[in-house]
Amino acid sequence: MRAAVLEAIGKIAIVERPVPEPGPAEVLIKVSAVGVCGSDMHYFEHGRIGGHAVDQPLVLGHEASGVVVGLGAGARRHHLGQRVSLEPGVPDFTCDQCRAGRYNLCPDMRFFGTPPIDGAFCEYVVLHEEFAHPVPDSLTDDAAALLEPLSVGVWACRKGLVNAGDRVLVNGAGPIGLVTAQTALAFGASEVVIADVNPQRLALAAELGCTQAVDVGATPLSDIGFEPNVLVECSGNPEAIGAAVRTVGRAGRIVLVGMGGDDVPLPLPYLQERELVLTGTFRYANTWPTAIELAGAGRVDLDRLVTGRFGLDQVAAALTIGRHDPGSIKPIVLPSG
Amino acid sequence: MRAAVLEAIGKIAIVERPVPEPGPAEVLIKVSAVGVCGSDMHYFEHGRIGGHAVDQPLVLGHEASGVVVGLGAGARRHHLGQRVSLEPGVPDFTCDQCRAGRYNLCPDMRFFGTPPIDGAFCEYVVLHEEFAHPVPDSLTDDAAALLEPLSVGVWACRKGLVNAGDRVLVNGAGPIGLVTAQTALAFGASEVVIADVNPQRLALAAELGCTQAVDVGATPLSDIGFEPNVLVECSGNPEAIGAAVRTVGRAGRIVLVGMGGDDVPLPLPYLQERELVLTGTFRYANTWPTAIELAGAGRVDLDRLVTGRFGLDQVAAALTIGRHDPGSIKPIVLPSG
Amino acid sequence: MRAAVLEAIGKIAIVERPVPEPGPAEVLIKVSAVGVCGSDMHYFEHGRIGGHAVDQPLVLGHEASGVVVGLGAGARRHHLGQRVSLEPGVPDFTCDQCRAGRYNLCPDMRFFGTPPIDGAFCEYVVLHEEFAHPVPDSLTDDAAALLEPLSVGVWACRKGLVNAGDRVLVNGAGPIGLVTAQTALAFGASEVVIADVNPQRLALAAELGCTQAVDVGATPLSDIGFEPNVLVECSGNPEAIGAAVRTVGRAGRIVLVGMGGDDVPLPLPYLQERELVLTGTFRYANTWPTAIELAGAGRVDLDRLVTGRFGLDQVAAALTIGRHDPGSIKPIVLPSG
Amino acid sequence: MRAAVLEAIGKIAIVERPVPEPGPAEVLIKVSAVGVCGSDMHYFEHGRIGGHAVDQPLVLGHEASGVVVGLGAGARRHHLGQRVSLEPGVPDFTCDQCRAGRYNLCPDMRFFGTPPIDGAFCEYVVLHEEFAHPVPDSLTDDAAALLEPLSVGVWACRKGLVNAGDRVLVNGAGPIGLVTAQTALAFGASEVVIADVNPQRLALAAELGCTQAVDVGATPLSDIGFEPNVLVECSGNPEAIGAAVRTVGRAGRIVLVGMGGDDVPLPLPYLQERELVLTGTFRYANTWPTAIELAGAGRVDLDRLVTGRFGLDQVAAALTIGRHDPGSIKPIVLPSG
Repeated sequence: MRAAVLEAIGKIAIVERPVPEPGPAEVLIKVSAVGVCGSDMHYFEHGRIGGHAVDQPLVLGHEASGVVVGLGAGARRHHLGQRVSLEPGVPDFTCDQCRAGRYNLCPDMRFFGTPPIDGAFCEYVVLHEEFAHPVPDSLTDDAAALLEPLSVGVWACRKGLVNAGDRVLVNGAGPIGLVTAQTALAFGASEVVIADVNPQRLALAAELGCTQAVDVGATPLSDIGFEPNVLVECSGNPEAIGAAVRTVGRAGRIVLVGMGGDDVPLPLPYLQERELVLTGTFRYANTWPTAIELAGAGRVDLDRLVTGRFGLDQVAAALTIGRHDPGSIKPIVLPSG
Repeated sequence: MRAAVLEAIGKIAIVERPVPEPGPAEVLIKVSAVGVCGSDMHYFEHGRIGGHAVDQPLVLGHEASGVVVGLGAGARRHHLGQRVSLEPGVPDFTCDQCRAGRYNLCPDMRFFGTPPIDGAFCEYVVLHEEFAHPVPDSLTDDAAALLEPLSVGVWACRKGLVNAGDRVLVNGAGPIGLVTAQTALAFGASEVVIADVNPQRLALAAELGCTQAVDVGATPLSDIGFEPNVLVECSGNPEAIGAAVRTVGRAGRIVLVGMGGDDVPLPLPYLQERELVLTGTFRYANTWPTAIELAGAGRVDLDRLVTGRFGLDQVAAALTIGRHDPGSIKPIVLPSG
Repeated sequence: MRAAVLEAIGKIAIVERPVPEPGPAEVLIKVSAVGVCGSDMHYFEHGRIGGHAVDQPLVLGHEASGVVVGLGAGARRHHLGQRVSLEPGVPDFTCDQCRAGRYNLCPDMRFFGTPPIDGAFCEYVVLHEEFAHPVPDSLTDDAAALLEPLSVGVWACRKGLVNAGDRVLVNGAGPIGLVTAQTALAFGASEVVIADVNPQRLALAAELGCTQAVDVGATPLSDIGFEPNVLVECSGNPEAIGAAVRTVGRAGRIVLVGMGGDDVPLPLPYLQERELVLTGTFRYANTWPTAIELAGAGRVDLDRLVTGRFGLDQVAAALTIGRHDPGSIKPIVLPSG
Repeated sequence: MRAAVLEAIGKIAIVERPVPEPGPAEVLIKVSAVGVCGSDMHYFEHGRIGGHAVDQPLVLGHEASGVVVGLGAGARRHHLGQRVSLEPGVPDFTCDQCRAGRYNLCPDMRFFGTPPIDGAFCEYVVLHEEFAHPVPDSLTDDAAALLEPLSVGVWACRKGLVNAGDRVLVNGAGPIGLVTAQTALAFGASEVVIADVNPQRLALAAELGCTQAVDVGATPLSDIGFEPNVLVECSGNPEAIGAAVRTVGRAGRIVLVGMGGDDVPLPLPYLQERELVLTGTFRYANTWPTAIELAGAGRVDLDRLVTGRFGLDQVAAALTIGRHDPGSIKPIVLPSG
């Protein structure tokens, strides 16, 4: 099969590799579509994210959909031909964190496209059968791939306890911000305000149902007069974080999704006097069923995020288009196209 | 002013009474619309509900909207002319239950239309200013009155932790069942099945968005193949309760809203093996803001429940129409009409 | 090895069986001590519990401690000679319930001494390494075995959200009631009242720290004047359940541990008016670390429950002593003694 | 009556004032004992805390006990002579925050010794009857006063969900740290490690039951090898906060009690990768009943914190002894002594 391999910083090569064999309880999947994530771009450009360094050739890509074309020993949850969305991080299932239902915190997690585990910018992958989630026909291949970023939004809204009547500020209108805002609306939030400096993204956010899309380059958040009771931080920008935190009302919740600087100054007296609760989030757990429902029922529009499609031999272009094109939101790679 | 007074079982008289004076932090409200509740009908027909007996002339009616026409000492949250929805139970604010945020469990609660506290089938009432909730122009007087039953649905969905992706069974398609089903959808539930024996109510439930409306006179719940993870019990019928409970899946939640028999047989081993959580509910607390959002944004349609309008001198007819007319859902009394 | 096998109702035979081989991630354990549970007695006497029937020879016993004497492929959490307490139910780890952290609700759970899975009344057993919990030297073999019933108590107190300042009623002073009462005290409860009709058990409960031990044969609960905010029901007796439920105060929690009749009448209006929350419990999940802490630190005394020790050839006697001897609380079988 | 009045920075005068009159639902209390809090010292020395400035003569002191000697109109919860502990912040009871059970966040809170509300360094005060909590004879006047700081500890442990089996790090061994550590043990924590640089406070912490007392002047926290799942931050020191946060294990909770700098740098990636939850706390709500239970049952020793007693005319000395005497923990003022 063909795979797009990151061989050095900024260098992707198409190489032939053997089709992998599904192990016990695994399925073999022919990959249909793969979204490009900011972390893929970061590995391509810098060769590392924090402590994770690309020390050997690596296949990137972890937002994927495909079709089951092979069953490993004991695999019994799929029929051949089943269209699936891939949950790209498989834990060890038996450690303390897994047994407590927090498998996203499993220290032995194997996550697609994170060194040294290969990802989905290739024709075939294997995956534990429980992590290959069947999708309804109403979902396109693109949308089935983008259930992964949607899961990030579902997880954020769960951690933020978003519910009917809530006033939510989504800080940052990148792909994660855009799915999170839609998710918050689907969770019943009555107001969802989104903040960014990119007018194209803000325009899309408004189209997708945000009650207000604020260009914080023009108007600081403190001038909007909006007091959210939930803040979902998707920008990772230390200054923007500080400004957003300072809008949250008493007993509000803050969910940190965006990754940014290391030590970020936070106004602790502000958090204390209002008894705010701030939660870090890391990936997701048990989100696919809800994500499938939301996208399948049309409550969240994932196809609208797709701004370009690329063949496997165009992976490098897909990984860099975001640098030049401010209108790029979510490029999709079609490995079998 | 004129008031419709329950003077004996089955006997309502229109009597002249002085317009009440708002006390400190109270407002005087000219009543616009009042929904008829099953408990009103029960007091009218039987003179008591459980331990609450009508021992002296009583004004019924607790689902009300109106206009602020007077301010008591220190009242500062309204201007004259403000349209409001009435939250009809005012607690003492300072007891253990109130301080813990459970004011609905306040032992000194004064609740409209519950002996010996008069209700809203009259031209004017007084109310604590914090319980006279301003409503937007998008809400009709009827809808503003029906925020009270909607609050019951909001409370039930909160207690049942209804959220995106949930599968909800609403047992009973009376007014409470119908608002609860809509609320569950607004809270993000992906499937909301409603069960009843009244075809007119089931038809309305389907119109209002229920994913399935089951006539349990024709098809027992156990034959539907639906395994909810949340059951909101709105029928109060002991047999129907047992059948509904037996459909709930592992770790599911059961919320008891409907009042029925005294000792109801429940399948405890079923609850235990699945670790179901069953919650009793009593009225509501802090629900109006969310109810106003849901109805104001059109996520819940309250006007669609109204099946008749009556003047103050027709209160007895409004209280009895449900006996003969299976199509009657929510009669409204217009005291100032 | 020798095993005590239930061959028919009331008939235990000592048979030779091969020592089992530990599979991948499993350990081989030489069994030190096994507590006799009411369910063991019930299988011995009736051949079934609910839908679980003993259709083939079965080894009973699921409250066990032992020593690791062999390691399966990949097992890496123990050294040979490690003393362990056995968590006797191993789930499939990967299903929906397991991934959600509710492995006790796994439909494919394999539980010791529950047909057709053999238990621990034998010399050797194999177990998943994560379910063989190392114990400190401060715990006797008996106590290490009785971490299993203690886990039931820990789970009940967690489900009942028992915490500092709570007033807890433990209904029933059998082994589960006695460990639950101690656990509630260790969780910070300020009052723990226990109810039973057996004076010997009540006397022991008082010794173990219960603030009141009520002989409900002599004094009905309603006469005690105790209003718990948490009820842990450990009797399984339908009448006793009803009486105990009726003592719980507003917003109280009820945890059902004891198994009793099928359809049990519950006072639903009582539950509703006070907004009580009733939770069924089934075994436990993630309880051993806490149970080990509580017993290891002496906050819970397990050895005090032991009322007799029996060799493997006396299993039948151990299973029946409770019928004649009201002072019997927890018989222990010593398979390797 | 005599009152110790802060007339300017560093200047306390004893002045004669009229005995206050209890209003409706209030009681008149003869003050027995008042603890000196760090905030009292801060107002004395700097004339302000954050936005709260002392613009007019102010009586400090908010950790108080006393005896009910007068009843306002309608007060019915006390008899004359009842010994009470004073909860020093009375909310408006009816605002959104109060109705939600978060009366500590009431914007109209009137709090003793916080400008412009007078405190308890005087002979008599009035207080809402629900905030004058009766205490048992087993509590000394000093201990009854110190239920106020204990309430801070109870609130912190509640917000941190401290429960049986938890490993708790208490950062800072001042009065709040010392009561919090004891409270964590009473809530069932199996390990409570406390960190400070003051050897006298660390020695006392060890006496009071902490499993380890770490002198972080000598040994940095990172060298201890302790991974708490709950951190209660009581130091307010930005550097110490960062070091303590970096010890917390996956899915751990962090409760911020100590007030320190404004913008404090926090390691957000550390919080995110472990999904830590960080909660600000502000005073307390509904804590006195639990605090009374814990102190009354001897689970928390408050008297052991008292390091000096002062008459009303020695208030200035009580407010400054902490500057010179590193052994000073909690000075007590006896206004009626």
